[in-house]
Formats: sequence, C-alpha cells, structure tokens
Amino acid sequence: MAASQKCLGKGSAAPGPVPKDHIRLYSMRFCPFAQRTRLVLHAKGIKHDIVNINLKNKPDWFFEKNPLGLVPVLETQSGQVIQESPITCEYLDEAYPQNHLLPSDPFQKAQQKMLLEDFSKVIPFFYKIPMGKNKGTDVSQLQTEFKDKLIHLNKMLGNKKFFGGDSVTMIDYMMWPWFERMEMLEMKPCLDGSPELKKWIEHMLEDPSVKAMMFSTEIYKGFYKTYMEGNPDYDYGL
Amino acid sequence: MAASQKCLGKGSAAPGPVPKDHIRLYSMRFCPFAQRTRLVLHAKGIKHDIVNINLKNKPDWFFEKNPLGLVPVLETQSGQVIQESPITCEYLDEAYPQNHLLPSDPFQKAQQKMLLEDFSKVIPFFYKIPMGKNKGTDVSQLQTEFKDKLIHLNKMLGNKKFFGGDSVTMIDYMMWPWFERMEMLEMKPCLDGSPELKKWIEHMLEDPSVKAMMFSTEIYKGFYKTYMEGNPDYDYGL
Repeated sequence: MAASQKCLGKGSAAPGPVPKDHIRLYSMRFCPFAQRTRLVLHAKGIKHDIVNINLKNKPDWFFEKNPLGLVPVLETQSGQVIQESPITCEYLDEAYPQNHLLPSDPFQKAQQKMLLEDFSKVIPFFYKIPMGKNKGTDVSQLQTEFKDKLIHLNKMLGNKKFFGGDSVTMIDYMMWPWFERMEMLEMKPCLDGSPELKKWIEHMLEDPSVKAMMFSTEIYKGFYKTYMEGNPDYDYGL
Repeated sequence: MAASQKCLGKGSAAPGPVPKDHIRLYSMRFCPFAQRTRLVLHAKGIKHDIVNINLKNKPDWFFEKNPLGLVPVLETQSGQVIQESPITCEYLDEAYPQNHLLPSDPFQKAQQKMLLEDFSKVIPFFYKIPMGKNKGTDVSQLQTEFKDKLIHLNKMLGNKKFFGGDSVTMIDYMMWPWFERMEMLEMKPCLDGSPELKKWIEHMLEDPSVKAMMFSTEIYKGFYKTYMEGNPDYDYGL
C-alpha cells in the first residue's frame, strides 16, 4: 500500500518508481471497476501499492498511464501498463499463478466471460435508477427491467453457492462491487424476486477479500452525497 | 462443413446432432463477427460444420442456442454453447491447443485484449459512414474521426508485420473482417494517413485462412445491395 491513500490531483508530483517485487494499481477508493482489481490483488495475495487518482481533477502524468484517464490501471516494475478492469484482473490471474480465480477448463472460463458480458448490461441500471430518482423522474420502468435482469442472474446462479460453484471465483469478484453498493443506493428491494442472489450476497459478505476491501454503507453515503452534488470527495472518511 | 451453405430460416427443421469429432458454428456468410470465428477455426485446422442462419427471419430453435439470436454461436458435441465472437475465439484457442493464436505471455495477451477493446470503438464507423452516405448526409466529420482512429492503429502497428509481431496472431483475425470490406464500402481512401496499416492489409491478404474465408468485392457488393434495400439475400452468390 502507498504511504497515503489520499488521491493525487492536477499539479501533484508523479509517484516514484514501482517498489521492488510489487505491482502498482492506479485506483480511486470508491470506484467499483477499480474495486474488481483490488479484490483480485487481495484474493491472490499479490504485493502491490496503490496510487489513488482524483478523477475530477486528474494529474497530467496520469494520462501517460491511460490516455482515457480512467482507473483501474496496473503498472509493472518494467513499465508495462494494463487498462480495463476485466483485462487487469485476467492479467493478474495469469501473471501470478497462485490461487487461480478463473477456471482452467476452457468452457467454464467461457461461461464466466459470457456471464460478465451479460452483467455489463446490468451495470447501467445501478446509475440510471438512482440518477433518475434524484431528478424526480419516474423510474418504475427501469426498476422492472432491472428486476428482470436480477432474476436472470438468480437463475444463472441456481442452487450454487457462488457463480462458479462452491467457492468464490473471478466472476463473483467482477460482479460484487455493485451489489456492495445496493444498500447505499436503496436498491435492495429490487432483489425481492431473486432469493438465490440474496443468499449469494450473504456468502460474499463472508469472503475475506470482500471484507477487507469494503466500505460501510455510512461511508458510501457520505461519499455519494458529495458525488451527487458534483463535488466528489475522493478522500471521504480518511 | 454442412451439406449446404444455404441459410436456415423460420419454419426450418433444426439441424441434427453435431457430427462426431466436430464442433458446430452457427454463422451467416457475410457477418464479420462470425468471420472472426471462421478464421480461427480454419487457422487452427479444427474440424467443424457450419449452420448458416437467416438473421432477418430466424428459426425458433435458434433462440435456444442464443436467446439474443445473434451469430456466431459455437456448439460442442456435448451441447455446450458459446456466444460472443471474442469469447468463441478464445475458447477455441484454449480448447484446441494446436497452433496457438493468443500469446502465452500474460502481458502480450493483455495487450491484444486492450487493442481489441480499442478496435471495438472503430467498428461503428464501418456502419455509420456508409449508412450516412446512403442517406445523403454529410459524413465528413465521421470520416475525420475514423481516419484518426486508423492513424492510432497504424501507430500501434509500428513497423511490425502483424499486430502481434512477425506472424498472424489472434488480434489480426479479430480486426481483419472489417478491413476486408473496406473496398466494397468505398472507405479505402480513409487509409491514406496510415501507410503501415496498408502494408498490413497486403500481408493479411497472403494469409491462407484469410484467403480461404474471403469473398470478392463483387460478391460483397451484391449482398450489400440487397442488405441496404432491407431485404438481405444471405445466400447471395451460392
């Protein structure tokens, strides 16, 4: 971990070299996409440091790491740079063979990727519904669609404990960050038609990496308030 | 290969079981996404049969293979079903170890995936520009953006023969189908600022799998005309 979790913004000095035997993650404490990578780093026990970025006021040097200015970004000691959350996670799983998170069977791996593709169409609802509510617009249609998508996930889960079987695998970590925010977003009632998914949430809350990376609903609410006001406090709670 | 290349539409009988030692591809002869999978099947020498689907008038049984009704879809003898072109291609590369198309080095593999992600933002231009022209709207702004994206690809290619180095790898096959259609779409002048990319096209045209899977510009034009008229003839040229 970096000396400080405080985010670096425009005008800040670029961080020094990646420490020996470490990999660096450019992140933002409340970003669900970056949380995917943080979960994988933790679950695999990979030595890393984290540089948090002020996403509203990005340092110029950050665009050298990712021209799009998005987190997560991984940087190796030799200066290799990897972007896009699923790509960073798969890279880590391959480059660090301990505790594999993706199945080795090609079809099971393909299944996880298809499910991730499905889930990518669920993510926008976690933004659209709260934004809509905030503006006072009618979100009932969006909520119905969202519930249907959750019911589909519930069906995909079936009676398995986790999406890949009896233990947590990559796909669980890829989906988790948005579920962690459901209470804060007041979206939990949408899970009513999805009992298996509710059980999955309970199981995930017992996972050591999930526990280590999570924020309380109170902290999320505090950050989210500043975010909705257009002035996100990325250091909220530090 | 299937007995007939003719597409199956609504009301058609479902095809029989996947032949012994084969994998089945549900495809459409002119679909660039399905062409990715066809290129990989050919390059790896995988025994397969192809069932072409009438995408305008889909058979009911096809929705059991893919609820979204899209090609490509792979089906194994045991009834495993794989959708989404990059997932089908990676599955084939892992399930059939001969002639690996993805690099084994985790960073090089991540680089191919990042480039594929970049390229996914180029694909819409291959549709928007011809559609715009067809409607008689001004596409000059779109063309400028498209040229910039090609220049970026040209830079990523650098002085390498192929995107992964001296020989064709997965990423080349993932991008190729759209370049094959550039002449038909009258988009070749957009390559003027991208000399390395032009050379890459010449090299790709010498690849045995590209040669085996390609259609002439004449055939493409014939199909495309029926497509633009709203009544695509998926069996054009048979």
